[in-house]
Amino acid sequence: MTQRNRQIRLARRPQGIPQAEHFEIVETAIPELADRQILVRNQYLSVEPAMRGWVNAGPGYAKPVGIGEVMRAFTAGEVVASKNPKFAPGDKVTGMLGWQEYTVCEASAISRKVREDDLPLSLSLGILGINGLTAYFALFEVGGPRPGDTIVVSTAAGAVGSAVGQLAKIAGCCTVGIAGGPVKTALCRSDFGYDVAIDYKAGGLLEAAVREACPSGIDIYFDNTSGAISDIAMGQLSIGARVIVCGTASVASWDPPPLSARLDRMILTRRVRMQGFLVFDYQHRYEDAIGRLAGLVRAGRLKYREDILDGIESCPDAVAGLYRGENLGKRLIRLS
Amino acid sequence: MTQRNRQIRLARRPQGIPQAEHFEIVETAIPELADRQILVRNQYLSVEPAMRGWVNAGPGYAKPVGIGEVMRAFTAGEVVASKNPKFAPGDKVTGMLGWQEYTVCEASAISRKVREDDLPLSLSLGILGINGLTAYFALFEVGGPRPGDTIVVSTAAGAVGSAVGQLAKIAGCCTVGIAGGPVKTALCRSDFGYDVAIDYKAGGLLEAAVREACPSGIDIYFDNTSGAISDIAMGQLSIGARVIVCGTASVASWDPPPLSARLDRMILTRRVRMQGFLVFDYQHRYEDAIGRLAGLVRAGRLKYREDILDGIESCPDAVAGLYRGENLGKRLIRLS
Repeated sequence: MTQRNRQIRLARRPQGIPQAEHFEIVETAIPELADRQILVRNQYLSVEPAMRGWVNAGPGYAKPVGIGEVMRAFTAGEVVASKNPKFAPGDKVTGMLGWQEYTVCEASAISRKVREDDLPLSLSLGILGINGLTAYFALFEVGGPRPGDTIVVSTAAGAVGSAVGQLAKIAGCCTVGIAGGPVKTALCRSDFGYDVAIDYKAGGLLEAAVREACPSGIDIYFDNTSGAISDIAMGQLSIGARVIVCGTASVASWDPPPLSARLDRMILTRRVRMQGFLVFDYQHRYEDAIGRLAGLVRAGRLKYREDILDGIESCPDAVAGLYRGENLGKRLIRLS
Repeated sequence: MTQRNRQIRLARRPQGIPQAEHFEIVETAIPELADRQILVRNQYLSVEPAMRGWVNAGPGYAKPVGIGEVMRAFTAGEVVASKNPKFAPGDKVTGMLGWQEYTVCEASAISRKVREDDLPLSLSLGILGINGLTAYFALFEVGGPRPGDTIVVSTAAGAVGSAVGQLAKIAGCCTVGIAGGPVKTALCRSDFGYDVAIDYKAGGLLEAAVREACPSGIDIYFDNTSGAISDIAMGQLSIGARVIVCGTASVASWDPPPLSARLDRMILTRRVRMQGFLVFDYQHRYEDAIGRLAGLVRAGRLKYREDILDGIESCPDAVAGLYRGENLGKRLIRLS
């Protein structure tokens, strides 16, 4: 192989949201395949809010990306060479293959073969990938929706939130979405079927707006933000409510953790169940869930939006852009 | 009926822990029984930490006791007259019959007939009553113990905590009790079988002591205190830990709620399940649980302690005494 490979590496460790200057583009050679390795040409690179956590030091799910390492990322692509009998050229795969054009890896780095040939490959990084899976397992395994429940979804127009809202609606819930700005709230209504969409940027009325939308309280709160939005939702939970802690997008730093009112008494008297969620805990059930999600997509019952940037040069600023709220839908980098 | 009845009524609304001066003793006549009513002579009156919440205004499970009303309390006693075919004189019963010598009530006020004739009636207010039931359902329904789990129990020598620790031990857990003072910690070891007992009053070493007792983290934390003890336990949870929020004894006032470090990120990254518990949610299953608990008591596998005060005059100061930590075991008032 003499093909060149461009990679995005972590150049400096950010404090908080990683900006373009924390990354560098490096061109390297693609190494020869060792026995049992495969070579994947990445066609889509994923951009996640969670990447903030992946590049910051401190407590998190996993070891932070090292300085000089290729940025950790989900990708979707095609096997172009294989010394592993389980994979053949032409196979479509997803995996944690990093922000780079080509990846040489063991089979263990591959999450799955993409079998939904009738649907765009990009979906395997969004509604049929980590985002749809997060929504599906968070809602059904932690949220426990029952018909008639009222669910409040933060980041309601986002890649995960929009799927949570739609799945909850399909499950018979009344859905209330909180999003930032008129464009996203309009999308919540038009595309994602929320019964109520609330613009948290529209002034100091969020608490009252949530109260009006949830007259008998919030039965499920899907929290992707923490901070002020979370505090308002937590103040309006019903008896027996479930809180899915899925993300903390609004909090810039956890070192030290910001202060808030103690929740113990409220959790006690309302018998709230507040639970942290990480999709990787459900890996053994991905295929079943993707099958269900794909069925809903094909039937037109589960909608999604993508925000596709072209070229690997778009990577370094792409996470910062998520936190600037500039995307509408799942952000991906398409490689030609 | 011309028998006189002495009652303890709420005379003034406390802020925080109710003291003797918030109650008054009043002597009244016992009213005639109406159709379907019964008359119970109370033999034991229960004293609960939860009574603080029952007499304070503000958010809680239930409407606070009104000024001039008989203090809400569990009692155990004997039916002495009945105009209800379901009850006959001589029946032993428990119910929310109030701090008074005699109670005239409907059948709906009775929690259950006490069928464990071979065991002391007082147990029906403790290990075979609200305390044992709280421990049983909190541990098994919310805590989800698995053999090999490490559980930390706050108020470990208390009426509920001591039962939680023993039941967890029976279920194969490593049990770590936190209690105040050398007498209670000795009791944790000698009577309640804790693997480790930690005295939180012994100096500033609680965090290190918990860490030493739980080298791979806390799998279940039974929280009856909130505050500083809770903060230390929450900082040492394992992945997938369960937190049973059962009481908030160490926090004097929730108006406004005290501040603490936000827990969201920790709950998220460690996939913690933190859940409020109220025993009344499990009323339909009391008989089954009491049968199991009574079996363990008879077999000598579930120990309990009682702290019995004599005479209704002991009531007014009895709750304040609990919060002064002066009791060892379930506090009851015995009426002659």
